[in-house]
Amino acid sequence: MKKNILGTSAVTQIGILVRDIEKAAQVYADLLGVDKPEIRTTDGPEKSQARFKGKPTAARAKLAFFDIGPSLQLELIQPDGERSTWREDLSRAGEGVHHIAFQIKGMKEKIEALGAEGLPLLQTGEYAGGRYAYLDGSKDLKVTIELLEND
Amino acid sequence: MKKNILGTSAVTQIGILVRDIEKAAQVYADLLGVDKPEIRTTDGPEKSQARFKGKPTAARAKLAFFDIGPSLQLELIQPDGERSTWREDLSRAGEGVHHIAFQIKGMKEKIEALGAEGLPLLQTGEYAGGRYAYLDGSKDLKVTIELLEND
Repeated sequence: MKKNILGTSAVTQIGILVRDIEKAAQVYADLLGVDKPEIRTTDGPEKSQARFKGKPTAARAKLAFFDIGPSLQLELIQPDGERSTWREDLSRAGEGVHHIAFQIKGMKEKIEALGAEGLPLLQTGEYAGGRYAYLDGSKDLKVTIELLEND
Repeated sequence: MKKNILGTSAVTQIGILVRDIEKAAQVYADLLGVDKPEIRTTDGPEKSQARFKGKPTAARAKLAFFDIGPSLQLELIQPDGERSTWREDLSRAGEGVHHIAFQIKGMKEKIEALGAEGLPLLQTGEYAGGRYAYLDGSKDLKVTIELLEND
C-alpha cells in the first residue's frame, strides 16, 4: 500500500452494530459511568444522499455516541431494514464492531486512492457539517474503515 | 449494570485478530504512515501464567502495536494453535476486531464485579509490568473487553 494515504494515524471512532440501541446505550452508559446519551436518527435520503454499493438507498440508523478518550468516540449503530453496510454486516455477522473511523481531508481523492489499493467503496452519505464514506478493508485491514470529513 | 465498575471511560486499545501478522503490520504501517513496528511474541506459560476458561494454557501470540491516538493503540494479534480467546475467535469468526481494552486498577475486584453483571471471565495472563483479563461482553456490550493493569 502507498504510504500515508489517509494523512493521519488517529482513529477517532469505534462503531458497534447493535439490535436494541436503547438497551445497549444504557449498558454502555453504566459501564462507562456516564449518563445515557440522546439517541439520534440519521437523516432521510433527501438530506443524507446515502449511496450503498453504487445505488441510492433510503437506509437510516439510530446512533448513540460516547466519549471514550481525549479524541475518541464509541458509536452504537442500530440500522433499519434498508440496504446499507450496517444492515448487511448485522445480518451476516451479527452484533459487534462494524468500523474504525479516521478524520480526513479531501474525501474524493482519499476514496480513489484507497480504492486503488484494494479497499472498495461501500457506502457514502452526508450529515450536517460533513460527509462520510465506508470502505471495505476486510481483505488487508480486517475491518471496515470509515472516513469522516467535516467542513 | 452497576454504574462505573471500571472506574474509567477511556478505551486504550483496539485488538484485531490476523492470520499473517507480518503482512498485516506492513499494510497498517503504510496506511498510518509509520514504520512497521517490531513484532513481539507473548511470554510462554511459565511467565504468562495464562489461563483460558479456567484451565492453564500454553497459548502464545505474536503482537504488533501502533499508536493511533493520544492514548490509544491498535494491537494486531496472530495467535498460535493453543487454546485461547484469540484462537477461538479467529477459528469461529475469522479475522477482525477481537477486543477493546481499558486500563484499570484492582484486577481481582473488577473481574468479580463484571462477572456478577454478566461478563464471564475468558482468559487471564501476566506480562512484564502488569496483567490482563479478557471478559466475554458479547451479550450486552457486543464485544470482548480486555482489562489491563500495570504495576
